[in-house]
Amino acid sequence: MLGAGCCLRRSRQLLASGWTRLLSGSSSSEVTQLEPQRDRFGGLSLYLSQLRAPERLDPGALRRWLQESIKQWRAEGHIAIWLHVPILQSRFIATAAELGFAFHHAESDSATLTLWIADGRSRLPIYATHQLGVAGAVLDVQSGKVLVVQDRNKTTNAWKFPGGLSEPGEDIGSTAVREVFEETGIKSEFRSLLSIRQQHRHPGAFGKSDMYIICRLEPSSFNISFCQQECLKCEWMELSDLAKSKETTPITSNIARLLLYGYREGFDKIDLTMREFPAVYTGLFYKLYHRELPEHYRNMTNLQDM
Amino acid sequence: MLGAGCCLRRSRQLLASGWTRLLSGSSSSEVTQLEPQRDRFGGLSLYLSQLRAPERLDPGALRRWLQESIKQWRAEGHIAIWLHVPILQSRFIATAAELGFAFHHAESDSATLTLWIADGRSRLPIYATHQLGVAGAVLDVQSGKVLVVQDRNKTTNAWKFPGGLSEPGEDIGSTAVREVFEETGIKSEFRSLLSIRQQHRHPGAFGKSDMYIICRLEPSSFNISFCQQECLKCEWMELSDLAKSKETTPITSNIARLLLYGYREGFDKIDLTMREFPAVYTGLFYKLYHRELPEHYRNMTNLQDM
Repeated sequence: MLGAGCCLRRSRQLLASGWTRLLSGSSSSEVTQLEPQRDRFGGLSLYLSQLRAPERLDPGALRRWLQESIKQWRAEGHIAIWLHVPILQSRFIATAAELGFAFHHAESDSATLTLWIADGRSRLPIYATHQLGVAGAVLDVQSGKVLVVQDRNKTTNAWKFPGGLSEPGEDIGSTAVREVFEETGIKSEFRSLLSIRQQHRHPGAFGKSDMYIICRLEPSSFNISFCQQECLKCEWMELSDLAKSKETTPITSNIARLLLYGYREGFDKIDLTMREFPAVYTGLFYKLYHRELPEHYRNMTNLQDM
Repeated sequence: MLGAGCCLRRSRQLLASGWTRLLSGSSSSEVTQLEPQRDRFGGLSLYLSQLRAPERLDPGALRRWLQESIKQWRAEGHIAIWLHVPILQSRFIATAAELGFAFHHAESDSATLTLWIADGRSRLPIYATHQLGVAGAVLDVQSGKVLVVQDRNKTTNAWKFPGGLSEPGEDIGSTAVREVFEETGIKSEFRSLLSIRQQHRHPGAFGKSDMYIICRLEPSSFNISFCQQECLKCEWMELSDLAKSKETTPITSNIARLLLYGYREGFDKIDLTMREFPAVYTGLFYKLYHRELPEHYRNMTNLQDM
């Protein structure tokens, strides 16, 4: 959190006076609705949603007021301005852009623009850079068979593990279990995290990076009823056959061999297990995945040189 | 890729005629610049950047034309419309929003809106959902000391591993090495991936999810010169002291114990190693991280029951 907000009261006074000067005719209650708010990054946030009668605001007036205010805010040591614009007020976006504002992000019915007003290049955090895909390697330890699918609408029909994009707020294991069920009708339980792949400039991710995680799942049902829309084929395949198969992707083949290694010599050799911890920021819990830690290391007991 | 595009030629004819009808006065070359393009998701993309003289386009005319075209596109079996709007043409965003378009994403000087026109809820892929942070656990195996910092501008001064947000297109290991150097002045090399944490609704990620990865690094320089702006303290700390310390975060403490386990009993017990594979989509390479696979499993040789 860089130095800002200390001058917030002054900014608010300036802002109110600015509006009064520029919006003669608009109610003063209208004016006082819009107040710059200090954000966690040391900038000031403006919410156009605070305008009760945005149609009464002339873009030219907003432009003049912003120009004047930005000089003042810069002098006051603020480092950046965040402008939050409801989609129906988008006519103000071009106005802000003419002053150097750019899109930081936008979603649904709101856009957020930023203008860096401190020296040097912007130190504002960028928006989400990764989409997350999760696949489930569902292994039936009784039969030694693993659940595989072939996608519809693919040029090459390669065997792969069922999976798909994670939904907002969804845990990795939950995505794997949900996608496996949606694609194949098989119910399963999360056991461990096996592998992570990072791929940049992904066409399916609008040019963003793709993070792809493969989980080890254990089936709790066995009768396949696969989604005809997504899948061309779906079957329980001998794990060693998948590990040897040419009719698959490099990543699937690789993970099949990893899974075979774990199946034959102990899953403890391949698993990343999960533990939950309380999150300081959100009050929620976060999930941490890594190699299983022996009890005496977890509790730091009976270790030499302590 | 759901059924679309087959009617693309008809759409283009309609589009051209639509423009001609609505933009009497604008040059026909202007008109033919804007053509709907089939996207990989089975929708049609419109790029307002194709307009040579956007100032000559009246939002009301665009609105009427869109209304008419959408009926036609729906009848032709298209499932969605993507509208790409340069920031200086943002006045057209509200126009589109009145017809049901919403922001899919926006960045820098361009916004992308979508309208789902098929039955049921939108099946369009969502935009990036995760920011990626990477930390480096730099362990000097000679001295058994690990590199730790205390952040400035934090209420509680807890020891942690240096790290920060990944830049667009940056590999996990590269982020760890870069952030360690920027924060501490220590040069290091990527050795392995140790742990992954997923945390949702993160305030520092604009409400998106945060993926946090910790890598094991090996130092190639040892003289600390830490960034005064980011760090309050920085030092080489006895690994076993960090593992026992109360003055740290749960995740740091946990990874310190994991690292101690690996340091004493072999890093092969805790490491996820990295391998590169060619990416089908981009022609680039992607990086895959998982437990080291024994040679005979990697090559599927000398394994029984093959």
